[in-house]
Amino acid sequence: MKRIAVLTSGGDAPGMNAAIRAVVRKAISEGMEVYGINYGYAGMVAGDIHKLDSAAVGDKVGRGGTFLYSARYPEFAQLEGQLAGIEQLKKFGIEGVVVIGGDGSYHGAMRLTEHGFPAVGLPGTIDNDIVGTDYTIGFDTAVTTAVDAIDKIRDTSSSHHRTFIVEVMGRNAGDIALWAGIASGADDICIPEKEFKFENIVNNIKKGYEKGKNHHIIVVAEGVMSGAEFAKKLKEAGDDSDLRVSVLGHIQRGGQPTVRDRVIASRMGARAVELLRDGIGGVAVGIHNEELVESPILGTEEEGALFSLNEDGGIKVNNPHKAGEELYKLNSALNNLNLN
Amino acid sequence: MKRIAVLTSGGDAPGMNAAIRAVVRKAISEGMEVYGINYGYAGMVAGDIHKLDSAAVGDKVGRGGTFLYSARYPEFAQLEGQLAGIEQLKKFGIEGVVVIGGDGSYHGAMRLTEHGFPAVGLPGTIDNDIVGTDYTIGFDTAVTTAVDAIDKIRDTSSSHHRTFIVEVMGRNAGDIALWAGIASGADDICIPEKEFKFENIVNNIKKGYEKGKNHHIIVVAEGVMSGAEFAKKLKEAGDDSDLRVSVLGHIQRGGQPTVRDRVIASRMGARAVELLRDGIGGVAVGIHNEELVESPILGTEEEGALFSLNEDGGIKVNNPHKAGEELYKLNSALNNLNLN
Amino acid sequence: MKRIAVLTSGGDAPGMNAAIRAVVRKAISEGMEVYGINYGYAGMVAGDIHKLDSAAVGDKVGRGGTFLYSARYPEFAQLEGQLAGIEQLKKFGIEGVVVIGGDGSYHGAMRLTEHGFPAVGLPGTIDNDIVGTDYTIGFDTAVTTAVDAIDKIRDTSSSHHRTFIVEVMGRNAGDIALWAGIASGADDICIPEKEFKFENIVNNIKKGYEKGKNHHIIVVAEGVMSGAEFAKKLKEAGDDSDLRVSVLGHIQRGGQPTVRDRVIASRMGARAVELLRDGIGGVAVGIHNEELVESPILGTEEEGALFSLNEDGGIKVNNPHKAGEELYKLNSALNNLNLN
Amino acid sequence: MKRIAVLTSGGDAPGMNAAIRAVVRKAISEGMEVYGINYGYAGMVAGDIHKLDSAAVGDKVGRGGTFLYSARYPEFAQLEGQLAGIEQLKKFGIEGVVVIGGDGSYHGAMRLTEHGFPAVGLPGTIDNDIVGTDYTIGFDTAVTTAVDAIDKIRDTSSSHHRTFIVEVMGRNAGDIALWAGIASGADDICIPEKEFKFENIVNNIKKGYEKGKNHHIIVVAEGVMSGAEFAKKLKEAGDDSDLRVSVLGHIQRGGQPTVRDRVIASRMGARAVELLRDGIGGVAVGIHNEELVESPILGTEEEGALFSLNEDGGIKVNNPHKAGEELYKLNSALNNLNLN
Repeated sequence: MKRIAVLTSGGDAPGMNAAIRAVVRKAISEGMEVYGINYGYAGMVAGDIHKLDSAAVGDKVGRGGTFLYSARYPEFAQLEGQLAGIEQLKKFGIEGVVVIGGDGSYHGAMRLTEHGFPAVGLPGTIDNDIVGTDYTIGFDTAVTTAVDAIDKIRDTSSSHHRTFIVEVMGRNAGDIALWAGIASGADDICIPEKEFKFENIVNNIKKGYEKGKNHHIIVVAEGVMSGAEFAKKLKEAGDDSDLRVSVLGHIQRGGQPTVRDRVIASRMGARAVELLRDGIGGVAVGIHNEELVESPILGTEEEGALFSLNEDGGIKVNNPHKAGEELYKLNSALNNLNLN
Repeated sequence: MKRIAVLTSGGDAPGMNAAIRAVVRKAISEGMEVYGINYGYAGMVAGDIHKLDSAAVGDKVGRGGTFLYSARYPEFAQLEGQLAGIEQLKKFGIEGVVVIGGDGSYHGAMRLTEHGFPAVGLPGTIDNDIVGTDYTIGFDTAVTTAVDAIDKIRDTSSSHHRTFIVEVMGRNAGDIALWAGIASGADDICIPEKEFKFENIVNNIKKGYEKGKNHHIIVVAEGVMSGAEFAKKLKEAGDDSDLRVSVLGHIQRGGQPTVRDRVIASRMGARAVELLRDGIGGVAVGIHNEELVESPILGTEEEGALFSLNEDGGIKVNNPHKAGEELYKLNSALNNLNLN
Repeated sequence: MKRIAVLTSGGDAPGMNAAIRAVVRKAISEGMEVYGINYGYAGMVAGDIHKLDSAAVGDKVGRGGTFLYSARYPEFAQLEGQLAGIEQLKKFGIEGVVVIGGDGSYHGAMRLTEHGFPAVGLPGTIDNDIVGTDYTIGFDTAVTTAVDAIDKIRDTSSSHHRTFIVEVMGRNAGDIALWAGIASGADDICIPEKEFKFENIVNNIKKGYEKGKNHHIIVVAEGVMSGAEFAKKLKEAGDDSDLRVSVLGHIQRGGQPTVRDRVIASRMGARAVELLRDGIGGVAVGIHNEELVESPILGTEEEGALFSLNEDGGIKVNNPHKAGEELYKLNSALNNLNLN
Repeated sequence: MKRIAVLTSGGDAPGMNAAIRAVVRKAISEGMEVYGINYGYAGMVAGDIHKLDSAAVGDKVGRGGTFLYSARYPEFAQLEGQLAGIEQLKKFGIEGVVVIGGDGSYHGAMRLTEHGFPAVGLPGTIDNDIVGTDYTIGFDTAVTTAVDAIDKIRDTSSSHHRTFIVEVMGRNAGDIALWAGIASGADDICIPEKEFKFENIVNNIKKGYEKGKNHHIIVVAEGVMSGAEFAKKLKEAGDDSDLRVSVLGHIQRGGQPTVRDRVIASRMGARAVELLRDGIGGVAVGIHNEELVESPILGTEEEGALFSLNEDGGIKVNNPHKAGEELYKLNSALNNLNLN
């Protein structure tokens, strides 16, 4: 393979730039040419494609966001969109693609490979909810941002003896909530993967203040419910503390990537190039047990594939990701709590 | 004066601990004893008062929040509350008080002084909206937190070509919005002190994207309206960009104070002690033209007093604070904008 | 076991406080009492021991350093010292000990266990050079501090087209240098585990500037040689660029622990308590493949033990730690370099 | 004036990019064209000059260093160098220049103005040692970096009961040391502007530990002597504590500028353009009493000029800058110290 391309797709995540840089530099060191595709699959179809040299990724390893821009482009789920994209790839002489993003991005990579254009997926999403990897690019940074914010909230919360509900990101996965909660010493953590009772939380709050605590912080993943709704239900369940809500929101997506995100993004980017160099596509790179691994994007659940075929030929998403049971129990032990 | 006390009152602000530390250390170096009053005026009335030695404020200069806790206590506006507080001061042999907080805190300090207990006010509030000082303790930190957040939002905003409305604190004063907007290179800044037209903002957004900008950030002080309401009105005025809202909220109150807040808090704390040492109360310490200054809490507007007497003997609040005209115009020039 | 103690020993590392907090809270949730021993083994022998309740570790999860203080105390390698310590443990009714530190700390834990006082070791050191764990407590924070510093150095280095040698910690292990170098996009990384030639580095520098680079950054682990010596040898080997040296030094030991260090410290602390609860001592807790693991402190190299017995009954230190070959090669590929 | 240029010269300082951005954007809003000159006066003479549009300074307000690069170029002190530079300015049709830097930069600006090319100076240096302004661009950031480092050093220092000498930048001016010392709660601060006795410091250290302090931190400006030399003299004067030295070095020059540096740089940059627009050169912009001010570069000391003519026609540098007496006394009071 002489010429490859790289794109970012879906929600942006800190570390995407570090991954792009590694793809570019590694490819050049392997004697390949690299093109950047702006705006994900939308840009592929539109032909928004330009050559990247080594200098183009200088000073990018620590920048937040993605300098190739990202976009959601559902049209690429359809054959027509895919063929339009491939036409552009041919025009530029591109033989393989590295795709950095989440589920939808992987789907596109699978289709490109099926059409004869090997594509490799890298897990770029803050939610840590992609199968086939212990960590996604951006997760460590998002948790770090959340913990910085909760550390600040704790200051004001302690000064006023307040209870705070902090809503963090995570639609399906409680990982951000769980890690941020443990790391900031939050009193309760509520995640989509775990049932809990509001009465128990009300009780935890009461006991805490009785024991002399000067604040109570509850981290709630957005997948559970919104912070405002959570507050309402907590009041209905009998909470009578001075209660506030803080929604961290989009700041969790931005910022300079942490060391860990920079390092795993660099490692994954380089591996993706090695795979394409060897003519391998249709796989996703992950990190498992601190080692780089690959899994097929389409395959069986046992193989660690993200997608499987249904009996009717439709596509089924495998995402057996579960926020760590160990961490959940750990937090209860550290705070002497009873949530469910 | 042999024995003084210190309290924090109203909303907490980063740097309050640095001010308390300076009061304690400076007083000890002047041969005085210092007592800390927990929970502001509420704690004064309840007698929640304890001695502070030099070690009690070790490692506090850089901590957020206030380790003396704060509380709002409207009862102290009434004579009954004040007398109950004074009774406690007498019990502990306290002869003067340093009060760190905002308007309400200053009011209490004025009353204590009138009752024969000299009290000095220090401006502890993130909003920068106290008369008699160019900067309040906590303002620089709050702006820094806001800029950190906007820097992150800009990353994700640029990656997706999005327009963001960032709601920052500031009920009456646009200072946080103005400084944070200039420092983060925000495209528009909307503050309570200035009229603006939504159509002009819609126009700015359009022109920006036409010129090839990849994001548009609007900083809105909460005193203008909520971020959600602002978004609604912007849409009604014709905006068709990909619009998001981020409410920074309580994180702006917490966190380790910046260098500047630590330094001005230390300077002000020491000055307050010098005033009490010299038997002076009923004044507020401020920083004006980088020099420490005092102004009477009750007096004429010309004297820089926070409160004046009405003809009917009632109290009038002087707060002629105006966010800098120069900064407002500067931002328009830097972004080539037309807001009003 | 009804009563356990915890101490920190050797060089301090960020995250030690998070580990202590987890030990205390977890033990209390298991119905045990916990005592803190100040100044490591020195304090044990001196009887500087005090009870820790849940509140004593409030607001500690994010603090740098160790609030139990640390000290080196070679006397504890001798039987006499150990017996003096045990006498104190008996006096306080302490039945088991959690020891947080490095090699020397583990040695003490092994001896205590042999004398009938089960002790568990946790790897608390920034160098990441303890056998039996993929990561030590403090490593992620130290690397993060180094990267923050190198990011700043890069700014000034680029402004002036300068070459910088940045000396980071790591006497035997190149992990800090390697991770910091990859994450900051350093041009060369020199570690004790790898040979290199100065002529090749001189050549890399020249080629970089010829290709239009505006700076060149070399990260050197202190175990290779000092930054000053490195600069001297580089000049001798023919470098003619504008060369500066920066020694990061002790800042790498301090600071608020990162999310990751807080989380692994919390997990390890809780596990140590579970082991003592079950009467198990003489083992070290580690993290391997993202799972908590234990290994004997004294045993065979195959068991992952830190210490083995020599044929003559002496003790041999197993520390087969090797900075990742993959990371080393990765950096060469990303920078197109030839070091050896 | 239709076309102006901007350059950075001398040591780089955080906030230079914010100043350049303001010059460019403000000039465009005034209908002027702007050119950037790379590498300061060296680039002027070499004709390394290129047009800057609004987009060229997008996303630059928060970046450290200077994207126009900087260089020292003593040749510009000579007439020959100046004429060579002017030839280039003519070639590009440039009628006025904004110069961001220190003493040497101002000298060049003065000469350009004398030759008929109005030039305005902005104080860009971390040392805060330029006459005619209360604060220089970069000072607040440098102090913030120093305080971050000292906060970390304090962690490890407290854990081990150590004495630390922290050497900060400042050849002639003690401002960085003074502000950083106050803000970090350092025990002693030694600056070039003040005499001190080593015996008194030894005494302070002893008294501190006797009173139960767990660390002692001494901030020393490099203009006093090196950290290593300071340590040697302290030992000679009788110190017997566990003493370490940390040299902060070049990290103080880099990093993202603080809010304050971004804001004052933006204000000054815009003002420089207004001056050139009005045909005014040979002056330096400063901030005094929080207001923008101008002073002649060449003039009398009373006018606040940096340079005055000697009787023999030679140039005399006026730099009556004195680190704040108030701050120095404040620190002594807060730490109960006796330095001189």
